[in-house]
Amino acid sequence: MSLTLYYAPGACSLASHIALQEAQVAFEAKPVRLDKSEQREAAFLALNPKGRIPLLITPFGPLTESPAILEYVASLAPQGHLSPVGDPGQLAKMREFNCFLCATVHVAHAHGPRGSRWAKTDLALKEMRQQVPVNMLAAFQLIEQWLQPGPWVLGEHFSIADAYLYTFSRWLEMDRVDTRGLKAVLAHRARMAQRPAVQAVLAAEGIPYIGDH
Amino acid sequence: MSLTLYYAPGACSLASHIALQEAQVAFEAKPVRLDKSEQREAAFLALNPKGRIPLLITPFGPLTESPAILEYVASLAPQGHLSPVGDPGQLAKMREFNCFLCATVHVAHAHGPRGSRWAKTDLALKEMRQQVPVNMLAAFQLIEQWLQPGPWVLGEHFSIADAYLYTFSRWLEMDRVDTRGLKAVLAHRARMAQRPAVQAVLAAEGIPYIGDH
Repeated sequence: MSLTLYYAPGACSLASHIALQEAQVAFEAKPVRLDKSEQREAAFLALNPKGRIPLLITPFGPLTESPAILEYVASLAPQGHLSPVGDPGQLAKMREFNCFLCATVHVAHAHGPRGSRWAKTDLALKEMRQQVPVNMLAAFQLIEQWLQPGPWVLGEHFSIADAYLYTFSRWLEMDRVDTRGLKAVLAHRARMAQRPAVQAVLAAEGIPYIGDH
Repeated sequence: MSLTLYYAPGACSLASHIALQEAQVAFEAKPVRLDKSEQREAAFLALNPKGRIPLLITPFGPLTESPAILEYVASLAPQGHLSPVGDPGQLAKMREFNCFLCATVHVAHAHGPRGSRWAKTDLALKEMRQQVPVNMLAAFQLIEQWLQPGPWVLGEHFSIADAYLYTFSRWLEMDRVDTRGLKAVLAHRARMAQRPAVQAVLAAEGIPYIGDH
C-alpha cells in the first residue's frame, strides 16, 4: 500500500501528518509551498481541484478534507487504536468534534489569513481579522468544557480528534486569543507535545510545538 | 430507542430529517423557531451550548454537526443502505464530500444570512453578501464534476451525502447562483424530490422542494 501526504508546514495538514505517524503505517510526506502558491499549479490541481492541503494519495485515488483523511488513516492503524471503532456513541462524538473543528474553528481562524475568500476590500478584511480572537476564544471555551475530565478529547482514549485539536490549539497565540481561561486546552497541547509521534512530525515539518503556519 | 430531532424548516437540519425518514427508524421532530431565537433560549442551550440546529437527542445524549448526525443515522438503517459500509474507499469519499458541504458550501452560503458571525459593519456584511453567489457557484462547479456520471453522489448507490447535497442545492436560487452550468446538480435535485421520504419530510416541514429557509 502506497500513501503520499501533501502538506504545508504547520498548516491544518499537520493533523493528518500526525495521524499517519501515530498509525505506524508507511507513508511519504511531500511539502507544498503555499507561499509560492504551489497548490494552485496545474500538477497539484490535477490531484485536488480545490487547490488545498491536506491531500492524501491513497490506493483508491486522491482524498481531501481533514476529517475524512483522519478517519481513513485511523482505519489503517493496527487494532484501530486511533478511533473508537465498535462504540457507536463515541464514534459519533468523535465525528461531531472533528466537524466542529473543521467547519467552525478552522473557519474562525481562516478569516484572519484567508479573509479574501469571503470579502475583498481592506476595510472588510481588517474587520474580519479583528473578529478572529473573539470567535476563536468562543469556540475554544466550548472545547475547554468538552475536555472535562480529559485527558483526551474522548476521555481515556487517544484518537485522531486529539491530533486535529492540537493543530488548531497551536494557533491560539498567533490568533491573539486570551488563553487564561483555557487551562484544559493548554494542558492538552502540552500533553500532545510529549508524544513521540508528534515530536517526530514537528521535526519533519521543521516547526515548533506551538506557532505559526 | 428514542430519537428526537430539533430542526428549523428548510435549514441545514433538513439533511438529518431526510436521513431519519430514509432510514425508516422511529423519531420525533421538533421545530425550533430561529426567527424567535429559540436556539438561544436556556432550555435549548442546555442541550446544545452552540445554539445551533440540527440537534439529535440519542440514547447516548445530544449529538450535533450534520455530518456526524448523518453518519450515525445511517448506522441505524437496516442493511446499512444509507452509507457504503464495508467499502473503505467509498466511505472515505462520502466523508470527504460531506465535509466539503459542511465546511465550504455551508460556510459560503452563511456569509449571506449569517455574516455577522465574522464581521459587524454594514459595509463588510454587504461585501460578504455580494461574494455569496460567486463562492457558491465555484463550489457547485466542483460538485457538478463530482456528479459525473451519477446519478447519486456515490454513483449507483444513494447515501446520506445525497440528502446533504439536496439541502444546499435547494438554496441556489436564493443565493443568486447562475445555475445554467449546473445541469447534473439540478437533475440531482429533481431526482431527490421524487423520493417518497423527501416528499414526506418537505410536507412535514411545510416547505417547497426548492426555496428559502
